[in-house]
Amino acid sequence: MSYKHIEVALADRSYPIIIGQQLLVNSSFYSSVIQGKRVCIVSDRNVAPLYLDTLKATLAVYEIDEFILPSGEQHKSLQQWQLLLGQLVSNKHHRDTTLIALGGGVVGDLTGFAAACYQRGIRFIQIPTTLLAQVDASVGGKTAVNHAQGKNLIGAFYQPSLVLIDVDLLMSLPKREYIAGLAEVVKYGCIADSEFLQWLEVNIQGLLARDSGVLQHAVWRSCQIKAEVVSQDERDTGVRATLNFGHTFAHAIELAGNYEQFLHGEAVAIGMVLAARLSFLLGMLDGDVCEKITFLLKNLGLPTALPDNMAPETLYENMQMDKKVHDEQVCFILLASLGKAVSRSDIEQAMVFDLLSN
Amino acid sequence: MSYKHIEVALADRSYPIIIGQQLLVNSSFYSSVIQGKRVCIVSDRNVAPLYLDTLKATLAVYEIDEFILPSGEQHKSLQQWQLLLGQLVSNKHHRDTTLIALGGGVVGDLTGFAAACYQRGIRFIQIPTTLLAQVDASVGGKTAVNHAQGKNLIGAFYQPSLVLIDVDLLMSLPKREYIAGLAEVVKYGCIADSEFLQWLEVNIQGLLARDSGVLQHAVWRSCQIKAEVVSQDERDTGVRATLNFGHTFAHAIELAGNYEQFLHGEAVAIGMVLAARLSFLLGMLDGDVCEKITFLLKNLGLPTALPDNMAPETLYENMQMDKKVHDEQVCFILLASLGKAVSRSDIEQAMVFDLLSN
Repeated sequence: MSYKHIEVALADRSYPIIIGQQLLVNSSFYSSVIQGKRVCIVSDRNVAPLYLDTLKATLAVYEIDEFILPSGEQHKSLQQWQLLLGQLVSNKHHRDTTLIALGGGVVGDLTGFAAACYQRGIRFIQIPTTLLAQVDASVGGKTAVNHAQGKNLIGAFYQPSLVLIDVDLLMSLPKREYIAGLAEVVKYGCIADSEFLQWLEVNIQGLLARDSGVLQHAVWRSCQIKAEVVSQDERDTGVRATLNFGHTFAHAIELAGNYEQFLHGEAVAIGMVLAARLSFLLGMLDGDVCEKITFLLKNLGLPTALPDNMAPETLYENMQMDKKVHDEQVCFILLASLGKAVSRSDIEQAMVFDLLSN
Repeated sequence: MSYKHIEVALADRSYPIIIGQQLLVNSSFYSSVIQGKRVCIVSDRNVAPLYLDTLKATLAVYEIDEFILPSGEQHKSLQQWQLLLGQLVSNKHHRDTTLIALGGGVVGDLTGFAAACYQRGIRFIQIPTTLLAQVDASVGGKTAVNHAQGKNLIGAFYQPSLVLIDVDLLMSLPKREYIAGLAEVVKYGCIADSEFLQWLEVNIQGLLARDSGVLQHAVWRSCQIKAEVVSQDERDTGVRATLNFGHTFAHAIELAGNYEQFLHGEAVAIGMVLAARLSFLLGMLDGDVCEKITFLLKNLGLPTALPDNMAPETLYENMQMDKKVHDEQVCFILLASLGKAVSRSDIEQAMVFDLLSN
């Protein structure tokens, strides 16, 4: 068993991320953080048939409860969150129970928010099973459920006690979902590490083939960058905004497509191309960097252009509903160079319309 | 305007408690913590008719939203919490909105939990209007709602940005509710400050007459003790448990009385007498200290004995459902001397039964 270790440095809320293979079957990592005798594994109907029995066998020394969500973003809801909390109450879980999120972002976000609120906070472990969750959602303590009027509107900052990233779990991921996750990996290169972006360019074939060694490095470097940013700005009041590179556009694109047309990572890919081009239009970034990013995303099989059905007016209106709008100004994360992101809230509407129209 | 100031020292979550008169009509305290242009005042149908207009006039410079709860503990519910969050979403509140809890513990706990979860955390101000909330619930960041199967089961540790304690507001409090609040004041003397307990004995008449000067001192010293304890143990894993002196019994008594027979403070008064007597039975405490505490509570008009309708078996069973039970052992906060509390989980059931039977 080989693995890498990253410490998310947050004073008394610090925790380790372990990245490797065969982590699901190795009980030693769990025993270091589980305090009581009981755990409750939360998973969904897609993931549970694949990995739940393995995890239960690994944790056989504990008394195991389980809660299986229906699959899909629409179940990242207050309703399911209440059902989970209700089960914890009914089964008389005390404060020393540990929740274990086995799944993608929906499972992780909902489980984390339940852990944050059950008896004012119990421990939880993230075992992300999608690439998107491994490099993004599982790290950083953003937990939430959706509200009918917007995503992630109800939630908490609440850090896990441990994140276990087993890249073996990605082998079962549908191709489209896997590739969508690569968009967030590319993002880390764009905002923080041009050398990592070049490494990604060199390793496109290994990434597409899901080569274990390549995957471990890609996930490790992504998590390392995210952990550094989160350590500096846990509550998202400053530098953490740079993690939203491409996301102002992406959220508008996802909403315009009714959350059906594009996966999150696909929308982020298009959004990053738009954000890079906006940086270029503002004279901040060389045109060849835009091309480089676009080319990499294309070669990974990701979309890089807006579809015909999305009017600039709709997209702009969607952007104004974003959580990060202050005083009616839409906030964009732009690139000053490859590997260096900056936040700007002073972009003229006309320029954004121009960008979205071409 | 005279006031006293206490700082709750919690690193980046530190905040001031202001204790005085005429605080509701003085805008200067609010402007120091409200960041955006908008506030949402949360109150209930008892308190709003008395004080809401005054507060709105004081905050006239802000855009004011309001949410008025039905009165009563049964509305400290996930349902009302969801309604409040839904209103914040519908009225498009952003992260810079400040919630203001104007009411007793129900309003404060629910508002704080909504602030903890709206967009992963927004600011909130506590303006407690009951004595119980002024000396206990409003300080320390314990926020929660009740679950059908237990009180405060769903919640978060989330600190307010400011606690404004205006003792003028206590003049409108029904006598029974006011006196119940005095039980928690006596508690602080018992667990942390024998001189304060003696001061309370000397000032019984001033307390019962709600003399402003006496009240300010009593509330100030209570909050100071609570702030010290909370600073040492924000998340209730150690010394904070001593604040539960009398509460293991009180929770069982409240439940046995279906939350109707006794107010919380009344149950705490009986619980403190029982906890002191248990300390005596264990040979930890002088009998005259038990008598001193009992006598003070009686003179304040508080109950000090179990009613006839509560069987020891029922009470003991209720205690075992308490959140703080570990490995089936009920935890009691006992007194080593007047002003010094200790936590014990090794008390034999027979001794507790004996205590409850006499």
